[in-house]
Amino acid sequence: MTGRPITRLEDLARLAGVSTATVSRALNDSAAVNVATKREIWKLAREHNYPFRRYMPSGPIGAQATIAVVITRPQGRVDRLSDPFLLELVGGIGDAARERGCDFLVSHVAPSTYDDLSALMATNRADGVIFLGQSSLFAEFNQLAQEESRFVVWGAQLPEQRYCSVGSDNLRGGRRATAHLARLGRRRIAFLGDIEAPEVIQRYQGYLRALEEAGLPVDPALVVPAHFEIEFAEAAVDTLIARQVDFDAIFAASDMIALGAIRSLLHAGRSVPGDVSVVGYDDVQFARYNHPALTTIAQNTGKAGRLLVSKLLNSVPDEEMRSERVPTDLIVRESCGG
Amino acid sequence: MTGRPITRLEDLARLAGVSTATVSRALNDSAAVNVATKREIWKLAREHNYPFRRYMPSGPIGAQATIAVVITRPQGRVDRLSDPFLLELVGGIGDAARERGCDFLVSHVAPSTYDDLSALMATNRADGVIFLGQSSLFAEFNQLAQEESRFVVWGAQLPEQRYCSVGSDNLRGGRRATAHLARLGRRRIAFLGDIEAPEVIQRYQGYLRALEEAGLPVDPALVVPAHFEIEFAEAAVDTLIARQVDFDAIFAASDMIALGAIRSLLHAGRSVPGDVSVVGYDDVQFARYNHPALTTIAQNTGKAGRLLVSKLLNSVPDEEMRSERVPTDLIVRESCGG
Repeated sequence: MTGRPITRLEDLARLAGVSTATVSRALNDSAAVNVATKREIWKLAREHNYPFRRYMPSGPIGAQATIAVVITRPQGRVDRLSDPFLLELVGGIGDAARERGCDFLVSHVAPSTYDDLSALMATNRADGVIFLGQSSLFAEFNQLAQEESRFVVWGAQLPEQRYCSVGSDNLRGGRRATAHLARLGRRRIAFLGDIEAPEVIQRYQGYLRALEEAGLPVDPALVVPAHFEIEFAEAAVDTLIARQVDFDAIFAASDMIALGAIRSLLHAGRSVPGDVSVVGYDDVQFARYNHPALTTIAQNTGKAGRLLVSKLLNSVPDEEMRSERVPTDLIVRESCGG
Repeated sequence: MTGRPITRLEDLARLAGVSTATVSRALNDSAAVNVATKREIWKLAREHNYPFRRYMPSGPIGAQATIAVVITRPQGRVDRLSDPFLLELVGGIGDAARERGCDFLVSHVAPSTYDDLSALMATNRADGVIFLGQSSLFAEFNQLAQEESRFVVWGAQLPEQRYCSVGSDNLRGGRRATAHLARLGRRRIAFLGDIEAPEVIQRYQGYLRALEEAGLPVDPALVVPAHFEIEFAEAAVDTLIARQVDFDAIFAASDMIALGAIRSLLHAGRSVPGDVSVVGYDDVQFARYNHPALTTIAQNTGKAGRLLVSKLLNSVPDEEMRSERVPTDLIVRESCGG
């Protein structure tokens, strides 16, 4: 800051030698003001500490739009960007935003109530908001959709849903993973995952469907809750072994769970895929570098990012955005054998 | 939008039943206006499409501050968030920002000239800007520092530097990696990296220092340029082999280069670490899952993120921020043997 503080729009206008309307438009980066004038006014505003902050205008080096990313308190996932899948998804959104000349803002807010969601949508000035994870906020997002349309949710598409979501085809993914294990002759296929999260429930339903199609019975002893962290997965496998449950395969609801399961199996002296075949879900970047390399259901974060961003940027005001399921691929590597 | 468009501050004030000064302050989230009034005005502004966008005010759910992250066109690194180290560093900054109740904005701008940097600093209203990578912009950042102090650069600290940087101790890191290989009895240690980038030059200087300390001669045939992508590293190792250069170890300037080198070596029928020991740099999350697990120099992205954010948030206006080197650790895994 190089000048005396200015707090009134009128004073800033006088200093710039233009009308208050022009200053107001310039500060809001209106197309009605030419670029040179805008830059001069921005410079004065900064120098005189005019209270106009947290704002990256468009213009010569400006953004076409700004997308806000809000990470809901994720069920069964760590609430940190260190979660590899979450981070890769943020990267996919970021690459998609930058391809279109847009900034993206990651909010510090982790909403957990309808009031949080509503305040967040009422106050933010982003062109659109992407919520990463619907967590347990299904009813709240439905309520929000009645008054807001500038948002899209990453996650499972659910019955009676009134908001736009983009997510992988979890049921089909779970079914393909399990069917692959059954085709390899596996008969006692365990499921590891947090079946409170909507996405995981759908993967679990796919698992049940595939078991039925393969004529395999469902054994509740083979279904073990596990959050999306390596340590939980290790504990889940330790539990299976301690209870002397007989199993020859694992379908894990995420790659992190699969990696933890493999570590625990190897530690217990079981070979992968010799004794136990393992399939994960996500295809995070390092799934291929694991030993054994992980067979998994790929969620393409690049494609997901582009889809989430284009939903918001191509949306027509007051027109409903259509939810979409991103197709999943079975990536066959070493952890299944066969 | 539910009301007729409003473009004049005066009209918005009339509608809200308050003065223009109050509206102006509310829109700028001044502490002088109470929260209920601000929320009412924000709501009216949104409903009447008042041109006030790309703005996430503080207040009840608002941010303490906003940090902007700008990714320079990185030398020898892909200009995408899919680069694992870059993505983990963004995650580290994001976690640090959220810990302090701050939003962070990733700009679509990839500055490559002084004018880019200057316009970016003049127009943005973030509380501070983190440039990821100084790339070839050393002189430009020095020039920028003469008029701007709200920025910090991730990267090597250089002689005659007049701006604040935070980066790993590259020279020490390169020296430790190379000394470790020499201690294991390796005598023909290759260096793979892009020695145009300041960080890589310092790692290379550490390599030279360690060779000298171990009494090993420097052989230019062992120094092969390689960008930060797996494919370049594979090509670099193929070149060494095709030229029949004798080597028993590799110090790679990044983990991605190390992983590519290992793949190429195994493909050529050489064992790691039996025939060739390999050390990387970064300790990206999946370095440990590689087969063989990668020995590497860790750059702690969590610590780096916290340091970058606190430099900006704790800075005193017009007072110079002190540059800092983040200590590096040698993480010994399987790819070196010994």
